[in-house]
Amino acid sequence: MREKWKNNFSEWYNEIIEKAEILDVRYPVKGVYVWYPYGYKIRRHVVELIRKILDGTGHEEALFPLLIPEHEFAKEAKHIAGFEDEVYWVTHGGLEPLKVKLALRPTSETAIYPIFALWIRSHADMPLKIYQVVNTFRYETKHTRPLIRLREITTFKEAHTAHASMEDAERQVREAISCYRSFFDTLGIPYIISRRPDWDKFPGAEYTMAFDTIFPDGRTLQIGTVHNLGQNFSRTFDITFENPKGEQEYAYQTCYGISDRVIAALLALHGDDSGLCLMPEVAPIQVVVVPIWFKDKKELVDSEVEKLTDELHDFRVHVDSRDIRPGSKYYDWEIRGVPLRVELGPRDIEQGKVTLVRRDTGERFSVPRSEVRERVRETLAEISSSLKERAWREMESRIHTAAHIEEIKKLVVEKGGVIKTTWCGREACGKSIEDRVDVDILGILDEEPAQGSCVGCGEKAEKVIIMGRSY
Amino acid sequence: MREKWKNNFSEWYNEIIEKAEILDVRYPVKGVYVWYPYGYKIRRHVVELIRKILDGTGHEEALFPLLIPEHEFAKEAKHIAGFEDEVYWVTHGGLEPLKVKLALRPTSETAIYPIFALWIRSHADMPLKIYQVVNTFRYETKHTRPLIRLREITTFKEAHTAHASMEDAERQVREAISCYRSFFDTLGIPYIISRRPDWDKFPGAEYTMAFDTIFPDGRTLQIGTVHNLGQNFSRTFDITFENPKGEQEYAYQTCYGISDRVIAALLALHGDDSGLCLMPEVAPIQVVVVPIWFKDKKELVDSEVEKLTDELHDFRVHVDSRDIRPGSKYYDWEIRGVPLRVELGPRDIEQGKVTLVRRDTGERFSVPRSEVRERVRETLAEISSSLKERAWREMESRIHTAAHIEEIKKLVVEKGGVIKTTWCGREACGKSIEDRVDVDILGILDEEPAQGSCVGCGEKAEKVIIMGRSY
Repeated sequence: MREKWKNNFSEWYNEIIEKAEILDVRYPVKGVYVWYPYGYKIRRHVVELIRKILDGTGHEEALFPLLIPEHEFAKEAKHIAGFEDEVYWVTHGGLEPLKVKLALRPTSETAIYPIFALWIRSHADMPLKIYQVVNTFRYETKHTRPLIRLREITTFKEAHTAHASMEDAERQVREAISCYRSFFDTLGIPYIISRRPDWDKFPGAEYTMAFDTIFPDGRTLQIGTVHNLGQNFSRTFDITFENPKGEQEYAYQTCYGISDRVIAALLALHGDDSGLCLMPEVAPIQVVVVPIWFKDKKELVDSEVEKLTDELHDFRVHVDSRDIRPGSKYYDWEIRGVPLRVELGPRDIEQGKVTLVRRDTGERFSVPRSEVRERVRETLAEISSSLKERAWREMESRIHTAAHIEEIKKLVVEKGGVIKTTWCGREACGKSIEDRVDVDILGILDEEPAQGSCVGCGEKAEKVIIMGRSY
Repeated sequence: MREKWKNNFSEWYNEIIEKAEILDVRYPVKGVYVWYPYGYKIRRHVVELIRKILDGTGHEEALFPLLIPEHEFAKEAKHIAGFEDEVYWVTHGGLEPLKVKLALRPTSETAIYPIFALWIRSHADMPLKIYQVVNTFRYETKHTRPLIRLREITTFKEAHTAHASMEDAERQVREAISCYRSFFDTLGIPYIISRRPDWDKFPGAEYTMAFDTIFPDGRTLQIGTVHNLGQNFSRTFDITFENPKGEQEYAYQTCYGISDRVIAALLALHGDDSGLCLMPEVAPIQVVVVPIWFKDKKELVDSEVEKLTDELHDFRVHVDSRDIRPGSKYYDWEIRGVPLRVELGPRDIEQGKVTLVRRDTGERFSVPRSEVRERVRETLAEISSSLKERAWREMESRIHTAAHIEEIKKLVVEKGGVIKTTWCGREACGKSIEDRVDVDILGILDEEPAQGSCVGCGEKAEKVIIMGRSY
């Protein structure tokens, strides 16, 4: 059942974050939350996955300070302009005012690039590919929401790279996109990749590529961005290198990030009215075993459950031995999204079988005891691909095409989601389209050839764009 | 050679932190540093190890916010008094002053315990054993030093537990000590466990147990603490539970922590004048393979090196194929403390051998190619136990016993290190001893029976104590 999930998504989301013990929202500061142990385990698996992908592509993990002195933070004019409304400032140490105000990083360009200037001397020092997983801070004045709009972003994975040529920086943008594709694919999170319009790019970037997904309520969520910074920051922070000709040149840079929002998407897209449906890849518990006790058979069942658990040691297994009815156990683990339930009672034992129940479909079936390991493996793989397919199918059903302004307006009211349309490419016209339909241009699909005319001005269309209301 | 390491330890330490690429100390804020990728990999292994130990003993990882509102932070009087001089305060969000000042956690009791009050209802909810690995902040006014005295502690592992009885809290203190023993033992870090004198315990604790190690310069470093908080914090934060009799009772609590200082000890204790000697357990590279190329044999050597590396896939292996002389490579990896070097040249190949060189002893020997995997395993294990033994032996040689004040004074001047002596147990007398010898009482060895008289007042000795100058 996905009635509430679909028709009252926001309420569903807020409830499930608490009920499934992902975050405790009762911390006494607005927009910051407490990770419960169960939620934290999901986070661990997600962070491990991105680390594995980045380590495997020659990125190296480092760690830069949280506190950024005002003089460094203010160096890049566009960057500071983009962030000054939302930076937290530390002004006092103990009972004394500090001589230099310290910003809590909202992102780490201004902490990292002064150090890059020291690390980079020659073209041989590059490409330099660094990342870190840190907490960052934004003084959000809009409505805050767990994992989506936070004042403390607890999981900010930011990569920063430097290159000896613009071509290599371009290659890096493609590599980053490919890393994120593989990351989101493993998590079964569908996405649209587009280039943000110039007026919405990262402050200080040449251009920004973005991954958006679409939530059940039709709103979009930015889940990853990749920025080509060109030489903008290297000029500001004096990151120079000696090129093969022996000349000094400013480095070419990129940066790219993902955050807690990935986990928001993971939870939001694969749920239903009974709770979460976790992707087996990141589920803290992949298989929950529920013993079905009958009066005089408890010992028999427990000993068989123990053997079964041993056989399943390749998986993350939990045996629920609480002294409550099986139905209550089912309910708890459905909320928490455990992908597969195994029930084992006297009748199963007698028949040499075990009962499996899939969380995603609710399907319940028996498998021979001798095949349990293999069947569990197969079933988890099926759950994984089925959740992924469903999420992609659903996201695609939320993308609509429009050829006229009136059509966009109608779609916005009647269907929501993302609207694909055509545009002449001029900023003034783009902004006027946004105003007229009260929906933002999310990005430009550079790969898709534009046909027909611009929905704004009627002139020749140059670009296919996507529009939508984002979180 | 350990001349500089021994006689000019402070300079050795500062140099090696940079040269071995552990931390870049050039970040433009005092007392905060940048983790280089190489140093960060050591940190990763150390954090993984403590996580494994804590997860294996029923602790659960969670994550609480960095920002603590002033009204919560100030609730516990002794606690705030202990920290108020060193707390960083966030006072502004964007361009506006905040209504409530926010402390950057110097430690997380006041962030976590209001939530414990919500999580704990009944004795069945306990023991509750939570930990987190986070960054914490102290506005240090003393001389700062990488990994030892920091303004941003990047690696603060703090555990917080709640119990239904004082006995269970006591049991938890013992469990924590046993976890830390096993942690430090794996890292080959020697320690003395003592109970801090009352005037030096954690602000708000009933008592504090501490792990200290002794550096080559004779100064001690606190590398871990375990606090029994009794009901002090639970009264302040109203953490109550229904006991089996149906009565409301305040929870009994403990907390314990380790920090970046563990890594400081790891680096400091196992070094020599050529650089670090890393424990194989946490070395980013356990085995470095250096191909010895001869004019026309490069291809042969490279192909044998590739085979060898495949055979050593159980270890963290790095092949140094840089186009520089082998001697320069040896030098680099010695600085970085790679435990074992494997050299492979045409003569080794001809003779069916490889050459191994131990970082800790410098010992160089040939082993038959067919046994290389087993011999590498053995040698790494030997390095590990030999580093550990040496560190323990050396630490013990820095502990001296004194029976009189004059003897303590003499030892302080001539030998430094830790002085073991006897005390009557009275605070006034203890403080007067500290004043007279200008050395602190580090802690009380409750397990050792005291004999003779107190060095301070000459009355009957009640306690064996250790004294020393700490970092």
